[in-house]
Amino acid sequence: MPSRYLSFRCSVPWLILSLEALFLIHSFFVFRGVGQVYYPSNSYSEFQDVNHMVIFGFGFFLVVLRRYGFSSTGFNFLLIVLGVQCSVLIEDLLIFFRLQQNEVGMKSLAKAVVSMTAVVISTGAVLGKANPVQLIVMTLVELIIFYVSRCINKTLLQVPEHLTLMHVHLFGAYFGLAVTSRFPEPPPGLDKNRSTPKSDLFSMLGTVFVWVFWPSFNSILADSKKKAVLNTYFALAVSAVAAFMLSALTSKDGKFRMAHIHSAVLAGGVTTSYTAHSIQHPWIAMILGLLGSVITILGSHCLQRCFNPALKLQDTSGVHFTFGLPAVLGAVAAVVLCVIKEGMEKQWNNLSSLGYLIFVDVGAFCQTISAALITGLITGLILNIKLFKAMHVSKYFDDQFYWEVSF
Amino acid sequence: MPSRYLSFRCSVPWLILSLEALFLIHSFFVFRGVGQVYYPSNSYSEFQDVNHMVIFGFGFFLVVLRRYGFSSTGFNFLLIVLGVQCSVLIEDLLIFFRLQQNEVGMKSLAKAVVSMTAVVISTGAVLGKANPVQLIVMTLVELIIFYVSRCINKTLLQVPEHLTLMHVHLFGAYFGLAVTSRFPEPPPGLDKNRSTPKSDLFSMLGTVFVWVFWPSFNSILADSKKKAVLNTYFALAVSAVAAFMLSALTSKDGKFRMAHIHSAVLAGGVTTSYTAHSIQHPWIAMILGLLGSVITILGSHCLQRCFNPALKLQDTSGVHFTFGLPAVLGAVAAVVLCVIKEGMEKQWNNLSSLGYLIFVDVGAFCQTISAALITGLITGLILNIKLFKAMHVSKYFDDQFYWEVSF
Amino acid sequence: MPSRYLSFRCSVPWLILSLEALFLIHSFFVFRGVGQVYYPSNSYSEFQDVNHMVIFGFGFFLVVLRRYGFSSTGFNFLLIVLGVQCSVLIEDLLIFFRLQQNEVGMKSLAKAVVSMTAVVISTGAVLGKANPVQLIVMTLVELIIFYVSRCINKTLLQVPEHLTLMHVHLFGAYFGLAVTSRFPEPPPGLDKNRSTPKSDLFSMLGTVFVWVFWPSFNSILADSKKKAVLNTYFALAVSAVAAFMLSALTSKDGKFRMAHIHSAVLAGGVTTSYTAHSIQHPWIAMILGLLGSVITILGSHCLQRCFNPALKLQDTSGVHFTFGLPAVLGAVAAVVLCVIKEGMEKQWNNLSSLGYLIFVDVGAFCQTISAALITGLITGLILNIKLFKAMHVSKYFDDQFYWEVSF
Repeated sequence: MPSRYLSFRCSVPWLILSLEALFLIHSFFVFRGVGQVYYPSNSYSEFQDVNHMVIFGFGFFLVVLRRYGFSSTGFNFLLIVLGVQCSVLIEDLLIFFRLQQNEVGMKSLAKAVVSMTAVVISTGAVLGKANPVQLIVMTLVELIIFYVSRCINKTLLQVPEHLTLMHVHLFGAYFGLAVTSRFPEPPPGLDKNRSTPKSDLFSMLGTVFVWVFWPSFNSILADSKKKAVLNTYFALAVSAVAAFMLSALTSKDGKFRMAHIHSAVLAGGVTTSYTAHSIQHPWIAMILGLLGSVITILGSHCLQRCFNPALKLQDTSGVHFTFGLPAVLGAVAAVVLCVIKEGMEKQWNNLSSLGYLIFVDVGAFCQTISAALITGLITGLILNIKLFKAMHVSKYFDDQFYWEVSF
Repeated sequence: MPSRYLSFRCSVPWLILSLEALFLIHSFFVFRGVGQVYYPSNSYSEFQDVNHMVIFGFGFFLVVLRRYGFSSTGFNFLLIVLGVQCSVLIEDLLIFFRLQQNEVGMKSLAKAVVSMTAVVISTGAVLGKANPVQLIVMTLVELIIFYVSRCINKTLLQVPEHLTLMHVHLFGAYFGLAVTSRFPEPPPGLDKNRSTPKSDLFSMLGTVFVWVFWPSFNSILADSKKKAVLNTYFALAVSAVAAFMLSALTSKDGKFRMAHIHSAVLAGGVTTSYTAHSIQHPWIAMILGLLGSVITILGSHCLQRCFNPALKLQDTSGVHFTFGLPAVLGAVAAVVLCVIKEGMEKQWNNLSSLGYLIFVDVGAFCQTISAALITGLITGLILNIKLFKAMHVSKYFDDQFYWEVSF
Repeated sequence: MPSRYLSFRCSVPWLILSLEALFLIHSFFVFRGVGQVYYPSNSYSEFQDVNHMVIFGFGFFLVVLRRYGFSSTGFNFLLIVLGVQCSVLIEDLLIFFRLQQNEVGMKSLAKAVVSMTAVVISTGAVLGKANPVQLIVMTLVELIIFYVSRCINKTLLQVPEHLTLMHVHLFGAYFGLAVTSRFPEPPPGLDKNRSTPKSDLFSMLGTVFVWVFWPSFNSILADSKKKAVLNTYFALAVSAVAAFMLSALTSKDGKFRMAHIHSAVLAGGVTTSYTAHSIQHPWIAMILGLLGSVITILGSHCLQRCFNPALKLQDTSGVHFTFGLPAVLGAVAAVVLCVIKEGMEKQWNNLSSLGYLIFVDVGAFCQTISAALITGLITGLILNIKLFKAMHVSKYFDDQFYWEVSF
């Protein structure tokens, strides 16, 4: 079926070209004068950390399939550079329509890179199933909906901006899961969706990279950076230790499983993403890291066996328990910690303001997760119409349908 | 022919030893007192970025050949550490002869690492053909000639110093091409000068590293760092997107080709190297990134087929279109942008000063490229005399003639 | 023997869990109020460098065995995150018992990560022989003894604190050697303790990472950071060059040997660790780097053949000559430089104060090395009692006894 391959030549390049033309035209008209764009700020080294983590770290974190290394790193790279430009465009449109204050230069880029994490996580869920056209369309739709969801949280529920961005993990994971549920299931005997020691080692390389830079990720937009860094570091350390413990407990023969380690060492970072800047004592962050790791590995062990077949979830790189469940836990913990703090400050009088706080947090959480699930399902349906030329299941998880591979 | 291997024992170590002795003696006599050498400056984290990019990034960027991984990373490392010390020596000699102001400590090292990029690029052109002795001699000759060429640009043409350093890509690429044209051609049926998926993945790792750190590279010596960083980032983002687009358009079956991605994602950084600090609007940088990517992939697609056989260019890792052509484009763009800016400021009166500006830019460009080509040809001829024991073509592209390899 | 594997399920998780519970309880009780823990400081980017170097760099530096990649990176990661928490606990206990001033936040973490280097180095010596239980016990014992040894140096011998930390290489290497001498020898014909080109390339990746970040490591706790960075950089550059020279001189056929390069390029960093902040002229650092490289490669070449069989040293990743010998050289050089400096300042009068200086330095050195050797031997004996279920020699150097490996 050579027509199937030729079809990419007729779609991918033109899709990318039209997007790029749009960005250029927008950039030509919208970017204001020099002083505004190149506003001095001191965040270059932090931006560098986050950029490095998202492009390099996640790119190699996703190299888990034995024959999908080029696509994992390559498409991750393509989607991020496309998505960052798209984010900048959306931000400028929001500024244009007065929905947002004018923010410039490095900070705007940093927010763009952070919100791209949602797309990276969703990509992990459909890894190996979606072709480049579907991935690009998914990126655009997801970015727009995530912006809309953030605007609702910000304007209606008065959530501070850097916290709206911390919903990336939650949004990305459930959007990706909803999308992937609309893709046809791979046949059970397939060999290509397993890992090899070599691909696991590359994935470990990416995981360690992401782990090291996660404190920068959680602190880049926070007010009290130092606190966010330390709390995230302690949470990550505890969740890494717990990952090894639980992996040996749950796996056959008491051996460690690399997939557990990949997922669970990062759980602490996800769990503390909402609260790293406000936790007052490191031991709270440490307990959050521990719980994050527990929920990740139990999720991977139990839910995967019971729920995934029932709900038809096929989640290639395990984003549900790597990012989804710890983010839910983190959101719950944020509400609890907020209630305790407010309650103690006001000595449990004036409970109505407390109720309002809970309402806001729970509302933002429910709004984000339902927006992710509903729009994800719709996106999944749209992506599987004939126009996008979805791959046949026999062609899943294979570089050679997208790349010239020479052996 | 065991004598061939033994010969390296009699040449490489003694060559390195005599160089190192020279550096030590120089360092003993020339380095001035403490205050001067350890001048405080704030550029450590930027220097770290560039150092990391050149040693780690380019080292793995060059791992494209299936049996040449040790040599690619190892020799790159050796040449850089040798070259940096050699650069510091040359700088000190220039200061001694009053050709240059005294600059100290970290900045002097940063300039040394940046100018080593020329050697790294040239090494890419002769990758797998030159033995260590030839590479070391090439490094020394190239560094000296590059310094002379920079001095001419600086003293005769009054080019600012950080711009003279930005000729590294141009100089390195054409010097390397000229050198490699004097090496005997590998036989056409050779299998060893192709890549494997594994080597391509390592090369992707290096490429992403270089990509992430390129904004630091373009801004380290610039005056308006923030502007240089943002412009370079936008140019790199557009060229990465365009790389995927054009790769799918030009390759067979509309698939992506890894070699295209490796080369073209970096084109934006090369193209904006002359102008990143002075571009007033990001859309100009974005267009430069797009054009850089176009010229790289068209160069790789067309020129490689037509011109390389005719001109006897055999360019192992494609430095001609990865660094050479985008640098030419960048130089042309610098002239055009400069003319437009000056013309608009002076409302197109006083065209004689404009003519002088054009003369300076074009002069510096022509001087650099002709110096690179002529001295490169001479160096190539010298490297192939019997003294340097050039490898036989059947021994090209193979680690096991330089390294103890155990399988 | 499935019981052997099940045993890890009954030991590793519970050991980790009890440790983690201890850390959490300690953290709950000991960590003081917010202002103290989250003390503002500017060292985040340096801490990031060192953290990255220890976790990522050393993790991949240790990937030298063909079938031990998962364990090399994974266990290194586990031990570091465990050890950092353990270090913070020990520091807090020392503060509690008034043996040390209260130091907070990032600096305390930085010191924890630096002192973990000792454990990482010891792990290199027993790489592939010790099971996770043994490694965790070794980590705890080594950290405690290293703290005690540092306290003795600090309180009795008045060594400045950042210098006591620079004994990590010395302590780690000789502790590891003493421990590994108590493990049964692997059979001579074993194939699994050799490297493959792939594992060597990963190890090279880690080595280059460690090399690039070493200046941050030597400067993070020093007073005159800029001086420490420059001196370390020059020493590293010279030792990298000398590594290639000496490798070609000592190996068969004049080829380079990857293992030599891995060890010797880092020698300059180890050798200057005591003196980087105080060396007045770069050429002294350069000579130290050269001597470090010489002692490493001669050590690897000669001692390995003569002494290792006699002393029953089996040192999997060569920590004796990579870290041990250069650290001894560095300690000697520190004494010599200190004597020369003091002597020149006081014009060789008042030699009694000079004698005291020598006594302090030599005393600290002897105390550290003898503590390392004696406690290392005892630890090695303890680790081989039946409780810890030491692996049989036929199961050395193999991931599949600890990890679920799918091919």
